Amino acid sequence: MTGRIEPRLLKGFRDIDPTAMERRVYILNKIEKVFRLHSFAPLFTPTLEYLDILKGKMGEEADKLLFSFTDIGGREVGLRYEFTISLARYVAMNPNIRFPFKRYQIGSVFRAEKPQKGRFREFTQCDFDIVGSSSPIADAEIISVMYDVLNELCISEFKILMNDRRLLFSILEKLGVMKDMLLKASRLLDKIDRVGKEGVIKLLEEHKLLNESIKKFIEMSEPTTAYRDVMEEFSKMIDITKEVEEFTELMMTVNQMTGNDKRIVYSPALARGLDYYTGPVFEVVVEGVGLGSIAGGGRYDNMIGIFSGRDIPATGSSFGLDRLEEVLEKKNLFPSELGRPYCLVTIFGDETVKYSLDFYRQLHKEKIPAEIYLKPKNIGKQIGYADSRGFRYTVIIGPEEAGADKVKVKDMRTGEEKVLDKDGATEFLKEGL
Amino acid sequence: MTGRIEPRLLKGFRDIDPTAMERRVYILNKIEKVFRLHSFAPLFTPTLEYLDILKGKMGEEADKLLFSFTDIGGREVGLRYEFTISLARYVAMNPNIRFPFKRYQIGSVFRAEKPQKGRFREFTQCDFDIVGSSSPIADAEIISVMYDVLNELCISEFKILMNDRRLLFSILEKLGVMKDMLLKASRLLDKIDRVGKEGVIKLLEEHKLLNESIKKFIEMSEPTTAYRDVMEEFSKMIDITKEVEEFTELMMTVNQMTGNDKRIVYSPALARGLDYYTGPVFEVVVEGVGLGSIAGGGRYDNMIGIFSGRDIPATGSSFGLDRLEEVLEKKNLFPSELGRPYCLVTIFGDETVKYSLDFYRQLHKEKIPAEIYLKPKNIGKQIGYADSRGFRYTVIIGPEEAGADKVKVKDMRTGEEKVLDKDGATEFLKEGL
Repeated sequence: MTGRIEPRLLKGFRDIDPTAMERRVYILNKIEKVFRLHSFAPLFTPTLEYLDILKGKMGEEADKLLFSFTDIGGREVGLRYEFTISLARYVAMNPNIRFPFKRYQIGSVFRAEKPQKGRFREFTQCDFDIVGSSSPIADAEIISVMYDVLNELCISEFKILMNDRRLLFSILEKLGVMKDMLLKASRLLDKIDRVGKEGVIKLLEEHKLLNESIKKFIEMSEPTTAYRDVMEEFSKMIDITKEVEEFTELMMTVNQMTGNDKRIVYSPALARGLDYYTGPVFEVVVEGVGLGSIAGGGRYDNMIGIFSGRDIPATGSSFGLDRLEEVLEKKNLFPSELGRPYCLVTIFGDETVKYSLDFYRQLHKEKIPAEIYLKPKNIGKQIGYADSRGFRYTVIIGPEEAGADKVKVKDMRTGEEKVLDKDGATEFLKEGL
Repeated sequence: MTGRIEPRLLKGFRDIDPTAMERRVYILNKIEKVFRLHSFAPLFTPTLEYLDILKGKMGEEADKLLFSFTDIGGREVGLRYEFTISLARYVAMNPNIRFPFKRYQIGSVFRAEKPQKGRFREFTQCDFDIVGSSSPIADAEIISVMYDVLNELCISEFKILMNDRRLLFSILEKLGVMKDMLLKASRLLDKIDRVGKEGVIKLLEEHKLLNESIKKFIEMSEPTTAYRDVMEEFSKMIDITKEVEEFTELMMTVNQMTGNDKRIVYSPALARGLDYYTGPVFEVVVEGVGLGSIAGGGRYDNMIGIFSGRDIPATGSSFGLDRLEEVLEKKNLFPSELGRPYCLVTIFGDETVKYSLDFYRQLHKEKIPAEIYLKPKNIGKQIGYADSRGFRYTVIIGPEEAGADKVKVKDMRTGEEKVLDKDGATEFLKEGL
C-alpha cells in the first residue's frame, strides 16, 4: 500500500449530498410522472460518442466546450454535451422507429465551461421530444408538458414565452435585415434577458443591423397574451399574413391544452440561442428568482437530416435540474418533511436485539420506512441520535417493552410517548406516513 | 452545412430503446423503494474524477480498464470505474458526516473491457453502503436489503452466499497457506463458479498452494444452511473458535432479519475477487439462468483510510442492472402490461380538434396516461396506429360523439365499444389503470 491519497474533486465538478439529492429526486419524480402521463417513453443513449457526431452542427462555440479525448482504440471521442444530437443519431440509425416517436432522457451532460457560482461541468438535463411530426399539436404538446411540470411542482409565478422563428425572421427581413444576417440578428436579440432592450439595440447598432423600424419593433416587444392585437400592429407595417396564421394556430392549440392560461404569452423578440431551430421556439422564465430561463426548446426540422440524409421533423424541450432546484428553494416550494427520516428502531441490549429486529422487519413488510440503530447502546444516546437526524418517530424497545410484547413509540416533535402492541404500533406508524 | 455525418455507436457502447428502458425503470423503481425503506439516502458523486483517486488501490488489472485522459487543464482524469472509491473519497472529504452514513448511488460506470455479448463499456450499477459502523447488524442489513430487493422483484430461485474472509483466511492459513499467499489463494478460490472445484484445485496446484487438507476443504465447500455443522467439522481439524463465533453471530442476525430463509447459505470457499474486503463477503446467484452473481459485496474497513488517513469501517453491496434485467427476462417476471401505452385519443377533423384536446386535458388532470393523435386523419388509420402500438384503449371522437357531448371508448383487446359522457369515460378509464 502506498501512502495516503489526497481526496479532492476536479475543478467544476461536485458531490451532491443526500439533502440536496432528496430535493432533486423529488423534482425528477414529478417531471417523470408528467412525461409518462403524456406518453413519452424513456430512451438511453451513451455518455460517450464519436466526436464528429457530438460536434454535429453546433458551431465552434459549442465545440470548445466538449470534453474530448482519444480513447485506447485511437478513436476521437467526447462526453455528451446535450441529448438532442444523440437523439438525432439514434433516429437515423433506427429507420424502423414508428413515428411519432415521443421519448425522454434524463441524465448528466458535460461542458468544459469556466466554472462559476452555480455552474458546473457536469449537470443534469431532462429532455423530452417528439420526432416525426410537423403538426403544431406536437409543438403545443411540448409546451403543455412544460406547463404541467410547472404546475406539478407548484411553481406559480412563471411565464411561458412563445414565438416562431419563421414569424420573427419574416418580420426582421421585411424591416430591412438581410437574409444572411437573420441568424446573427436573432442571436443578438436572444440577449435581451441578459443585457436588456437598450443593450440589444446597442449591439445591433454595433453590428450595423439596426434601423428605426427594428428599434421600434424591439421596443414594442413585450411578452403579451394579446398576441392577436400585437401581430395586427405588425401587420399594418408589413405583410406577414401566412406566418401570423401559422403562429395563431399554434397559440390557439396551446391555449386549448392549457385552459387559456394567462401565463402563456407571445414574446415577439424571442429567438433562442441555438442555430438549429426552424419554427416555434419557447422558454420558461420564473419571476422573482433572478435566473434566466429554466426550460426552453423549439422545433428543429433539419437536424436529423445531418445523419439520416433525409429531414425528419422534430420538436422538443429541456428542463435544467439545477435551475429548477434553485427556483423551488428560493420560493420555498419543497415539502417541509422532504428527506426527513421517518422512524428509528432502538436496540437496548443483547437480550432485546431479536425483538427489535423482528419489529424492524415487520415495519418493512408494511412498507414503513425505518432505520435500526446498529448496536445496543444507552437508550438516551439513541434518542439523541434520532433527534439530531430529525427522525419523526423513535420506537423504544427496552426489556420491559419486549417482556410485555409491546413497543413504545415516541413522537419526536411533541415528545409524546405511547405504549402499543406491535400491530397497533405498526398501524399507528402507517397512518402517520 | 457540411455533408452527412455517418451515424454510429462507439464499440462497446449501446443505445437502450424504450422497450428495454421500461424494464430497467421497473427494476430501478423497485430497488430504490427498498433502499428507501431501509433508510438509505441518495448521494451523487461525479462521473469524472482525478485518475489517482480512481486508481485507489484497485490493482493493475483494474487500472487497465479505466477510461482515462488528460483534460484541457492538463489534469489526469478518468471516468468512474465503480462507486465505492468515490464514496470513500467523499467520506474522507466530509469529516462532519454523521455515522452511520447509509447512502445509495445508481448510475453509469465505465470499463474499457473487451466488448462481448452482454458486456458493455458503460453499464448501470446500484450501490448501497453503510459507512461508519463495524457492527454485524450493518452487514446483516446489507444482506437483508439484497434479500428484500430479490423478493420485491419476485425472483424466487436465488441463493445468497455468505462467508467471512477472516474465517476463510484463518482456515486456509491453519491448513498450510502462508500468510502472504492468502490473497492470492482467495483470488483463485473465487473462480469456482467459472472453472468449478476441479479447476480451482488444479489452479492452486499450479501455484503450489495445494495440499491434501485444502483439497478436502474445497471438496467439502458446498453452500449450506447447516453452517453450524460444517463449521464444527472444520473445528475438529483446526482451532477457529473466535472466527466461528463472529460468523455465527452474523448468520444469526441475517436469519433474524430474513425470517430464517433457507436460501441464505454459508459458502465456505466464497472469497469475492476484490482485494479490499476485510470481513463478511456475500453474493447473490440465481439458479437456472446461466449467469454469474447478480449482486455482491462485503465489508471493507480499510478503504476510506487511503484517503482520510484514519480507517473508517464500511460495508456494502451492489446490483448490476444488466444481469437483473436478464434474470427477470429469462424467468418471465416482468408484468405483461409493462410499457404498454394506455389510451389514445383520436382527432377526427378540424371541427373536432377542440373537443379532442379538451378531453385529452381532462384525462391528464385525472392522472390517466394518454396520447393524442397529432393531426386529424381517417379514424380507421388512427385505430390501426393504436393497435400496432399496443394501446389498451382508443377514445374515438367523431362529429357525432362531439355533437352529443360524448366519447366512444374502444377496448383494443376485445374490440368492444362503449359510448359514454366525458366524465363517465374518464371514470371508466381510471378504473382500468
